[in-house]
Amino acid sequence: MLSALELAGRIEAGDLTPADVVDICAETIAAHESEVHAFARLDIERVRQRAQDAAEALVAAPLRGLPVGIKDLFDTADLPTAYGSPIYAGHQPKSDAALVSMIRRAGGLVLGKTVTTPFAFLDPGKTRHPHHRDHTPGGSSSGSAAAVAAGMLPIAIGSQTGGSVIRPASYCGIAGFKPSFRLLPMTGAKALAWSLDTAGIFAAGIADIALAAAAITGRDLRVDKAQTAAPRIALARTHVWAQASEAMQDAVEHAARLSDRAGARVAEVRLPPALEDAFRAHATIQDFEAWRALAFEYDHHRDAIGPRLRELLDRGQTITPDDYDSARRAARRARQVLADLMVDTDVLLTPSAPGAAPKTLGSTGAPVFNRLWTLMGAPCINVPGLVDSVGLPLGVQVIGRFARDRTALEAALFVEQAIAGAHGG
Amino acid sequence: MLSALELAGRIEAGDLTPADVVDICAETIAAHESEVHAFARLDIERVRQRAQDAAEALVAAPLRGLPVGIKDLFDTADLPTAYGSPIYAGHQPKSDAALVSMIRRAGGLVLGKTVTTPFAFLDPGKTRHPHHRDHTPGGSSSGSAAAVAAGMLPIAIGSQTGGSVIRPASYCGIAGFKPSFRLLPMTGAKALAWSLDTAGIFAAGIADIALAAAAITGRDLRVDKAQTAAPRIALARTHVWAQASEAMQDAVEHAARLSDRAGARVAEVRLPPALEDAFRAHATIQDFEAWRALAFEYDHHRDAIGPRLRELLDRGQTITPDDYDSARRAARRARQVLADLMVDTDVLLTPSAPGAAPKTLGSTGAPVFNRLWTLMGAPCINVPGLVDSVGLPLGVQVIGRFARDRTALEAALFVEQAIAGAHGG
Repeated sequence: MLSALELAGRIEAGDLTPADVVDICAETIAAHESEVHAFARLDIERVRQRAQDAAEALVAAPLRGLPVGIKDLFDTADLPTAYGSPIYAGHQPKSDAALVSMIRRAGGLVLGKTVTTPFAFLDPGKTRHPHHRDHTPGGSSSGSAAAVAAGMLPIAIGSQTGGSVIRPASYCGIAGFKPSFRLLPMTGAKALAWSLDTAGIFAAGIADIALAAAAITGRDLRVDKAQTAAPRIALARTHVWAQASEAMQDAVEHAARLSDRAGARVAEVRLPPALEDAFRAHATIQDFEAWRALAFEYDHHRDAIGPRLRELLDRGQTITPDDYDSARRAARRARQVLADLMVDTDVLLTPSAPGAAPKTLGSTGAPVFNRLWTLMGAPCINVPGLVDSVGLPLGVQVIGRFARDRTALEAALFVEQAIAGAHGG
Repeated sequence: MLSALELAGRIEAGDLTPADVVDICAETIAAHESEVHAFARLDIERVRQRAQDAAEALVAAPLRGLPVGIKDLFDTADLPTAYGSPIYAGHQPKSDAALVSMIRRAGGLVLGKTVTTPFAFLDPGKTRHPHHRDHTPGGSSSGSAAAVAAGMLPIAIGSQTGGSVIRPASYCGIAGFKPSFRLLPMTGAKALAWSLDTAGIFAAGIADIALAAAAITGRDLRVDKAQTAAPRIALARTHVWAQASEAMQDAVEHAARLSDRAGARVAEVRLPPALEDAFRAHATIQDFEAWRALAFEYDHHRDAIGPRLRELLDRGQTITPDDYDSARRAARRARQVLADLMVDTDVLLTPSAPGAAPKTLGSTGAPVFNRLWTLMGAPCINVPGLVDSVGLPLGVQVIGRFARDRTALEAALFVEQAIAGAHGG
């Protein structure tokens, strides 16, 4: 894999040029893309040219000219954007999504559009797991996760309405960051559910996603130079714990033990019933909003919508405004309960997914360990490093308090290092 | 003016067909559009045809086939959408905005796109006040307000980031409704500031906007048949009261007295300092988000952006994430303070604008009485009916509690009737 932090450092030091990094990515893409199918569209030649022409300005910018993959859910003015759907095949937006502009302003080079499942829901796209080709890479940000895991890109952008950043990051064994709601704008991305859709970032490790987040937002989010205090972690088994595989349960408990041994204060917490209510509220909110957000597509192209999404929309149609309002109230209550619960806790620790990447290309896996946290708007990070008995990655999820993204990233780095130390000793 | 409620009733009764109403609108448009310039694009012929072809289904639908004008900030798949800007001249979106789809599903006919100021900010568009042609109709939803006020349309859609629904409604002497944040989706509308942009509705009177809101959302918002209790009103002079003209101050106090006489409980309330902080926070949030939401346009077409918006974006560039976070915290605190303040109050009563429509086409007026309430996410309604000494409309603003849109509409109806009663006696 390509560490964004390391590449940025080598560019800064003059050991590499932005064009060199484009070439490194291009080589890996040439070697593996025909089997991984991570990209909806590539733009290597133009980007290499730009990396040369604008080298000086790029090197001086926060992202140092690093290549970035953009989930094909975000509009790009120079590349077609199909939202993963045949309905939008060849569609060329007039402008860049806000997040894409922010990446360009930060000196990132958009090397390609990565595969999204259709409209970022559960119907699979064409992408395969980069290391286990008959397994799903997860979804909906399938291409972004697979491209980073395959070493084709140091940074990729995804989005999560249920679990579409954290789950594929877990399956592919990379770091994934779903920041606090609206830390990254969704303006210019195709909506599925406007109060849930959240942009996120993939990279090799925690320090890499933090670098990317800091560079894109201009926020003090880098954790590579900080002396970080040992975090206060609460292991939260959640009410869906039984849906996690034994291997995943072991992984989370193992990560907790390793963090404890490394000096973290690790407690256990039982989530109050209000959070279980909110878990159920997620589906109501998502389906109600999707019925409206994708109204045009449903009303004019229903047959071109995948079966899982069509089923969701059929269901969304039956949800009443009263149901929706109740669900939103449940979410509001739960956010308060969660804030109270975490008053002396930096982060929760839970599974990132029910288990390792399922051996199928007919499903992208289940977002059951993610939906609640998306609805809470809390920063979530997939910490990679653990694997199951056959070598499939098992990610653990670190969940911070709303708007405390830096604290969450620091805690995730701590857990990542605790896991890595265990591997060494 | 065309009452949506009355037209819907006549269609229901079989006295009018949807095509008849299209003809009524078309006649007024033919008579006045060449001077008012309310429309960016008209679609009369196709809509008349559709009103005939689909008459049965339309009459059975909640909006009964009524013509609706859509602010040209919202995407339409069958009509170009330019967001008021030469940058997007001739731009044809691939799909309808979610709200447009909801209107079509409810049996509304999109008769045309109404003029928005460029990207819904303060640089004026081409629209004139329908009754006072050398006065501004207000902005940014200039065309929607003017078209309804001129009797060209019974219903029009607008949006408000600062005061772009309530202010033009006040200037044009019609009802305007900015519902609770995200009651109406902004998906598929061009963003200016994603945590402020709020879709709204214009119509002749309060019962008309309530009919439209109910039909579009499927919510129980109609107030024409309800026996509404006398509301508990708090006259709120706000810290910018001195910026209201004497005529506007008189109008608000007069509306309060008339409501009191009609049986409302009218108190006075002094807004706590937290709300003044939030007023200031609005600009910080708007400018910070606009710098990102319109990044593509600024970075690629800066010279084609109007001077007021360019100035805003230049300013937005200098706002730090810390400033923005502080502003959002101020907004959150103020929302809580407002909720506490209104625990025994149904609505606040304030000016809708500093005064009557200014005699200029070089400005759309000031949103100084609207920005705070947009940031609060509270439902706001312009109640028409009062005029100044030269006959220019003076709207008063009724502000409800978040998510209590029905209560706010009922109170607005009460105030409207109190004012109308005074006219009669």
